[in-house]
Amino acid sequence: MSPLFTINQSDNNTSARSGVLHTDHGDIPTPCFMPVGTYGAIKTQSSEEISNLPSPILLSNTYHLYLRPGIEVLKKAGGLHSFMNWQDAILTDSGGFQIFSLEGFRKVTEDGVTFRSHLDGSEHHFTPEKIVDIQRIIGSDFIMMLDVCPSGDADHQTWIKALSTTTNWAKRCMKQYKETEPIYGHKQVLIPVVQGGTDKELRKQSALELCKLEADAYAIGGLAVGEPKPEMLETVEWMDEFLPKNKPRYLMGVGTPADLVRNVKRGMDMFDCVMPTRNARNGQLFTFDGKINIRNSKYKSDFSLIDKNDISPMSETYTKAYLHHLFKTEEILGYRIATQHNLRFYIHLMKTMQDEIQKGNFATWAKEFIVQYSHERISNKSNNKF
Amino acid sequence: MSPLFTINQSDNNTSARSGVLHTDHGDIPTPCFMPVGTYGAIKTQSSEEISNLPSPILLSNTYHLYLRPGIEVLKKAGGLHSFMNWQDAILTDSGGFQIFSLEGFRKVTEDGVTFRSHLDGSEHHFTPEKIVDIQRIIGSDFIMMLDVCPSGDADHQTWIKALSTTTNWAKRCMKQYKETEPIYGHKQVLIPVVQGGTDKELRKQSALELCKLEADAYAIGGLAVGEPKPEMLETVEWMDEFLPKNKPRYLMGVGTPADLVRNVKRGMDMFDCVMPTRNARNGQLFTFDGKINIRNSKYKSDFSLIDKNDISPMSETYTKAYLHHLFKTEEILGYRIATQHNLRFYIHLMKTMQDEIQKGNFATWAKEFIVQYSHERISNKSNNKF
Repeated sequence: MSPLFTINQSDNNTSARSGVLHTDHGDIPTPCFMPVGTYGAIKTQSSEEISNLPSPILLSNTYHLYLRPGIEVLKKAGGLHSFMNWQDAILTDSGGFQIFSLEGFRKVTEDGVTFRSHLDGSEHHFTPEKIVDIQRIIGSDFIMMLDVCPSGDADHQTWIKALSTTTNWAKRCMKQYKETEPIYGHKQVLIPVVQGGTDKELRKQSALELCKLEADAYAIGGLAVGEPKPEMLETVEWMDEFLPKNKPRYLMGVGTPADLVRNVKRGMDMFDCVMPTRNARNGQLFTFDGKINIRNSKYKSDFSLIDKNDISPMSETYTKAYLHHLFKTEEILGYRIATQHNLRFYIHLMKTMQDEIQKGNFATWAKEFIVQYSHERISNKSNNKF
Repeated sequence: MSPLFTINQSDNNTSARSGVLHTDHGDIPTPCFMPVGTYGAIKTQSSEEISNLPSPILLSNTYHLYLRPGIEVLKKAGGLHSFMNWQDAILTDSGGFQIFSLEGFRKVTEDGVTFRSHLDGSEHHFTPEKIVDIQRIIGSDFIMMLDVCPSGDADHQTWIKALSTTTNWAKRCMKQYKETEPIYGHKQVLIPVVQGGTDKELRKQSALELCKLEADAYAIGGLAVGEPKPEMLETVEWMDEFLPKNKPRYLMGVGTPADLVRNVKRGMDMFDCVMPTRNARNGQLFTFDGKINIRNSKYKSDFSLIDKNDISPMSETYTKAYLHHLFKTEEILGYRIATQHNLRFYIHLMKTMQDEIQKGNFATWAKEFIVQYSHERISNKSNNKF
């Protein structure tokens, strides 16, 4: 069986590495960013448009797909790849984070979690085993385990209990994963999720327990949920020691362009975030000179191209003035242009990082990028810290 | 100066004809349908997607563009073609119909019409001259005159007065048109609008008066606004006699696929309607077997392609079940797929009519199409009537 992950180059000055994820739906250069298609569609974009990106892997959500279109439809369709006409790789989040973010009724026991649908209030029960079974039906190339996600302000005791449950669920997910087979013939990889908030001891304990499962990849969950940024970065840095160097590491839900760079530096390989797509629909564009909001009246008569830096076809076709007009008149084309631009900016950023790691220039490049991009520094005594 | 309109084939059995509109932005085969881009964008579609249609001409709206982005922006942009990156022909409606449909304040005098913006209540005044000037700045290939559009239930006296004003305004539009030049170097054609509701004498009088202006094309306005369908068709049929045979006739705001066929039969060459785009966003798709609503639960597990008849790339890529899911989850991609499908269905229908007229088979084809398409017949004693 071919390995899941090849590291081509490890950076000498940081924990960054460039490599390739080998899936039955194609190779994905890392570090990589996964656009979010919660319901099996990247908002405003067609499958073909996303597939034409240089790193075609998308993230969808087990909880949401389970509710709509439902598992029966996905089973009849032959999985999500076929349903959405997508030939490339898919990672599905378990939906644990979404279920634990729901307002209203939710009950966790050792067996699993009972919750009400946010759509119609109907009651459902997920177990670690069921979450694996559903993702077998979805046909995800990467299956995420079901984890317990306490809120950011939970007390220490809650965190300890949550972590214990998460660890037990991880074992049950792995057991179910090993006892079942892919339905559609392509390889599926189970990813356990390290939890523990920003508590270093809990994180260490979680990582050590999950490493015993000998999974092919590991994820860090429960960060970028509101904790101070230095604590997030310290936690990721701390995890570098306890997660296997030779396996891909997926930092869930991150993040801003600067945070992608900061966490690649800390040895992370895979990322996902709604930021490029969601912010696009609010008129916020990412550029190599920083963020701009196209709704700003200063763009009303700005007939320069949206972006000249070879980021996206639409950004090189339309002017800022036209995009401003489309947002003012709430034309869907505006959301399309902005989404295409932001996603391609993110993918371009990942490609740049891959290249800079290959060239051995990552640390230098990264420092410059963060200064130029965000004019934002994280308060730290060391000048080498970014 | 090359002629605006060439008729290639006149049908022996009906008033239908196929021809070509020659514009400085390309030739447009007729009969033709113009997708509606009120604010300089076809809803959900990019300029490139529309430009790739076989009859690339779009309709925009003077009143709406005047309010947003405003004439100053369009002037600085070098016109609407440049603003929206559109290389093909544009027809702009004057906005008369929109102004006369506004709720609230509106005052018509012989000089022009004063109205309040539907956006912010600000007061504006349009004259026939100003409407020409604005469309010079927009750079429309086809300029529509400002007309008075009484509501469908207006009394006879109101209609007579409205028609008299419309005729005077047409003369002033033509004078202004002749005394001004295109700003961007390409030819612009002024189109007067015949009014008169469904009153044959008023329609005749309007047509005869406007014909004296020797315009290059004529439009029929004030139909498809709620009058009974047989009256609409009779009015169009009546106009055939009074409008020059050798000039293009534009039937404004029409219509359903069956009504396009019925009015091509009656000698009409140009059409526009929001139906294919608006209905698409409500989930209604036009097919050669009639209309379907993709929101219907029977499509939940229908994994057949949206349309196999070579109508649109997206219809041949995605299944009905996926499109149903996209509508249920309100994904913008669903609106894009449905809009692309409907617009291409309309364009395909126009192309089919062009071909059937060329082959001398239009009457036979049209009767079959209407029976198959709509299962709808207009009550009439003659079997030849459709």
